[in-house]
This record gives sequence, C-alpha cells and structure tokens, in this order.
Amino acid sequence: MIKPIAWRDGEVEVLDQRLLPHRVSRIRCRTVEQLARAIEALAVRGAPLIGIAGAYGLALGVWRSSPGSLEREFERSKRRIARTRPTAVNLFWALDRMERRFRSLQIRGERDPRRGLLEEAKRIHAEDAAICAAIGRNGAALLGKGSAVLTHCNTGALATGGIGTALGIIATAHGRGRVGMVYVDETRPLLQGARLTMWELKRHGVPATLVCDSMAAGLMAAGKVDCVIVGADRIADNGDFANKIGTYGLAVLARHHRVPFYVAAPTSTIDPTIRSRAGIPIEQRRECEVTCFGNKPIAGPGSRAHNPAFDVTPAGLVSALVTEIGVHKPPFGSLRKRLSL
Amino acid sequence: MIKPIAWRDGEVEVLDQRLLPHRVSRIRCRTVEQLARAIEALAVRGAPLIGIAGAYGLALGVWRSSPGSLEREFERSKRRIARTRPTAVNLFWALDRMERRFRSLQIRGERDPRRGLLEEAKRIHAEDAAICAAIGRNGAALLGKGSAVLTHCNTGALATGGIGTALGIIATAHGRGRVGMVYVDETRPLLQGARLTMWELKRHGVPATLVCDSMAAGLMAAGKVDCVIVGADRIADNGDFANKIGTYGLAVLARHHRVPFYVAAPTSTIDPTIRSRAGIPIEQRRECEVTCFGNKPIAGPGSRAHNPAFDVTPAGLVSALVTEIGVHKPPFGSLRKRLSL
Repeated sequence: MIKPIAWRDGEVEVLDQRLLPHRVSRIRCRTVEQLARAIEALAVRGAPLIGIAGAYGLALGVWRSSPGSLEREFERSKRRIARTRPTAVNLFWALDRMERRFRSLQIRGERDPRRGLLEEAKRIHAEDAAICAAIGRNGAALLGKGSAVLTHCNTGALATGGIGTALGIIATAHGRGRVGMVYVDETRPLLQGARLTMWELKRHGVPATLVCDSMAAGLMAAGKVDCVIVGADRIADNGDFANKIGTYGLAVLARHHRVPFYVAAPTSTIDPTIRSRAGIPIEQRRECEVTCFGNKPIAGPGSRAHNPAFDVTPAGLVSALVTEIGVHKPPFGSLRKRLSL
Repeated sequence: MIKPIAWRDGEVEVLDQRLLPHRVSRIRCRTVEQLARAIEALAVRGAPLIGIAGAYGLALGVWRSSPGSLEREFERSKRRIARTRPTAVNLFWALDRMERRFRSLQIRGERDPRRGLLEEAKRIHAEDAAICAAIGRNGAALLGKGSAVLTHCNTGALATGGIGTALGIIATAHGRGRVGMVYVDETRPLLQGARLTMWELKRHGVPATLVCDSMAAGLMAAGKVDCVIVGADRIADNGDFANKIGTYGLAVLARHHRVPFYVAAPTSTIDPTIRSRAGIPIEQRRECEVTCFGNKPIAGPGSRAHNPAFDVTPAGLVSALVTEIGVHKPPFGSLRKRLSL
C-alpha cells in the first residue's frame, strides 16, 4: 500500500501528490513551515491525512527545541499548522489531541515530552489505518454483488493513514466481489479523481472508468450507477457535511434518480461544535486553479473565476453515514448524542 | 462581431476554434474532406454553425466539378459531410435544404447550379444571423433587471451565423441592463465555456465568472443564479433535447433549486421525425479527450474513460424553449404541430 506520509530521522517525509500519477517524488520537511506549505499547496491532502500531517507537524515543531523553548515552539507550530486549511476538521481534531497529550506529559512532569508527542502522532496515524479498515468493512456490507459505484475526488490510501474512507469501502467490497465498475469523477479543478483515484484503483485491480464531473447525471439517468460513495471534510452535528466541490450536486442528482448516496468518514470528521451547514467554513482557493491548467492558461487573460474548494450537502440528501463505529441512517438528530462523541 | 466561417474565392475559410482564445488562426478548406475533418476535430463547432458549414461544404463539393460529374460530386459530398457528427440535427437540416435547392435548380434546367447552391448556403448563413437576433430579442424579455445567468458550453457568435442562441439572449439582455453576472461553466472535457464563452463575453463587455461544471449546484443553493440558459443540438418533437454533456445535470439541479431553465435554439434544431429522447443519437468521442489535457496525460497510462459529447434532457425539466418564433412554455405536446413545422 502506498504511504503518503512517514516520520524519518527527525523529519516528516510526504509524497508530493501534485506530481502523481506521473512521478513518485517525496518532500522531506525539516521544519513546520515546510510542512505547512506542503499542506497549503496540496502536496499532502485528504482530510484524515491532513490530521495525521498536523500531528507529525507538532512533533516536528518541538523536535529540535531546547527544553526552555518547547512551550513556545509548540504553540507557534500549532498556530502555523492551524492556518493552513480551514475546512477539514480532522486537522483541528488532531492538533487538539496532540495538545492534550502535550499538557498531560507536562503535568506528569515529563522532562522531555518530545518522544511522547511523536508517539502520539504515530498512534493517530496507526489508529487511522484501523479506522479505515473498519469503515471499509462496515460500508462494504451496503453494496450488492457487482455494484456500479460512482465516487468523487480521492479518498483512498493517499488521503488517509490506511486504505481510505469511501475508497476503502470500494476496495473492501471489491475483495468480496461486490464491485463491478467504479465511475470516477475527474474532480475539477485539481483532478484528484483522474490523477489519484484512477491510479489507486488500478493498483487494487478494480475496474474503473474516468468521467468528467458533468457526466454523472447522464450515467444515473441511464441506470448505470447503483450507489454514490464520497468522503467528508467536516460533518456538522446534524449530519450536514462539507466535501470536495461537486459533492453537493452529486447528492441532488442521486436523490433525483433514487440512487443511494453514502458518506464515509471517521468519527473525527464530525464536529459536534457546529450545529449545521451554516457554521462550516469553506476554503476559497486561487482563481488560477480554474482559469489555468497546470501553468497553462485555459481562459483568456483577465478572466475571473470562482473557486470554492468545498461545498456543503444537507443531511437530508444522505442515505447513510459510514464510520468506524457502524452504518448510521438518517434522520441523524444530533450525531454527538447518537454516537456518544 | 467574430466570423467563424466565410466563403472565400472558391474555398471555405473557418476559424480554428481549438486554438482560441490564445491564437486566432484560420483554416482554408479547398476540399470537402478538409472541411469534414475540421468539423470532426471541432475546429468548427456549434449546432447552427455546423449546419452552415455543411451548406457551404456542398457548394464547395461541386465548385470544381465538370457539368458531367456534378450529380456524383454532390452526392459524395453530402455523404461525407453527413458522416462527420451525428447529434446536431442542424447539419442534416442544412444538407437536406441544399439538396432540395439542387433538385429544384436541376428541374428548372439550370445548366450550372453551382452559383445557385452557393447562394443558398449564403442564404442559410444570413438567415441564421436574423434568427439569432430574434432569439435574442425573444429571450431577453424573460430576464429581470440585473439577472445572474448561468450558461454551459458556447452558444455565441462562434457557434452560429449571428450573435448566438443562449449567448445571443445574454448579449441582448445585457444591452438592456438585464444581466448582472454570467456564470460560465467551463464545460469539460473540451472547455468551450472557459475558452470560447469567456472570450466572447469579454468582447461584449458582459461581467462573467468562470466556474468548474461541478460548482453550479453550490451557486444555485446560495441563491446566486436567477436562471440557466443553454442551447440545443437536437430537439425531439416532444421537447426532449440533446445538448453538450452536463446540460441534463444542470436541468435537474435547476429544478431542485426552483431556478428557471431556458433552452434557446432555432426551429431548425427541432427534429419532428424524432418523437422523444430515446430516438436522439448521441456521439461518443475518443477517451483521450477525458484522460488527457491537450496532449498531456492527466490520468495514468491505461486509464479508461467514458466520453459522450452530449446528454439528453427531458422536456419536463424545461421552463421555456426560446426560438426565433417566440417563447414556448411546456407542456409542449407536439412541437411540430404547435409551431407548424
């Protein structure tokens, strides 16, 4: 399985996902600033993986500190990493968990909490692998034999610490003969579906067909899609969720065509402090991601563009939420209460 | 106004739309084969313009014939041009009209029908300009002051013999202060929205924002779209219609968000011989239009893709059909009867 992140000799090594599938190249981050820039530039991406990267980033931030500057470096690192991307809550969840660990190490009077922080980051990483495996098992049970699944963006090993969320379900279900075809939305503007998901599915030996995002509706109308499975970047307490731009449209189309629409995410993606979609911050990215392709302009000079990285889907359009705990069907009420978060 | 096609000294000169907006370059077609390839390669595109190109193509096909080979050359040219693209009916409409003209010239005993054929092609071209102007006037009346309009693909001067169909409405409405913003779907895979529509709107001075096709749903949910206006490549007798891939999804999204969805096309786009959507042939294009960008691969080697050039929208999702005759609201019954075609 591909490893998109690793701790190596006091550095965080990340796979540069911008270059995939054409080149497998790794970036060694010696400083928090280097890692933060890799997250901002989407060399490292995917909600669960950003959380893991943030955890390693805090270990990295204090790794070369003297005992006297540990507290200051920890705080500075946390602020810098928290500023990278606003929507995926897994990042803030991981930073908070690392902070709790840091405080507990301090309270215990640990003279050097650096190893303890690194262990916590590695634990978050390893736990995510187990969580993905559980999501995969839970979700695979939803699929009938030889299902045609449509998915959006990339939610696989490249986006997590394990086999993935939505793509983890697909991989697990494929192992049980339940996947006949995966239709992969290319996922404009940055083409994570075309570049990353197609690559991962090929490695798994899963039959896959790439489509432009605008082709999903026609596939559904033709009866070619048995279900849609997507990931999530932040889920509000009522089940509304943010995910890669285009997800909301798919959810509306799935409802119109009576195609089941499943969301797969670890419970750490649920943000119980946010009641509903209105509270979810949406990252707006640079216009040139839309007006250009790579560095080559598509639209004429001076063209303006709109570029939200995510959209928000109301809980009412979700057929089931799949977490490591189980399969949760609407109405969700309060996810915090229902899942005892 | 930009002229995408012209007859020049016994040749058909077309603007190579594949190179826009970066380069304005023209192709001189001396033979029907050259013109047919320009249509197949989408150097010339847009349903009404393909019709005009087809008409000039028949004039070109006989232009250098001896009197004895006229009949054979006409038939051969018609067969070749008819084979270029299957979906837009304007092509077949124009070829049939040229054939009727050819037969009537023969019946009249015209010794050299070549000039008559060229005149008919020029008439089709000029009529299309008048038709676009009428569509523009009829449709502009549907828009309130400062409307935000979403459109898909390119339906302007580059796609027709005049100011365009959907884009003609937008240009006309803009002249009356009725357009506040045009959201332009980039229109994957070949990006006619990003490359062509953004360029045309800029020339008109119309405020425009480029969006990825997957962003339309979020714009509608945010209340930012007052109406959707699209063109059509073939309209069945019951009002079902084929248009650029992605149109059907937009129609479903517009219905879900109660946004009016308008279709603009000349009556020559209506095919009364086809009862409903099941009868409309849909062109499937090469996979590499989806797996590559320009000549650069996006997806990994061996990736398969689905690439229908069009999808079909049922009449039930159309708020109004705008033609040169007027604004037609559903239920359409039989368009042939209703519009006396």
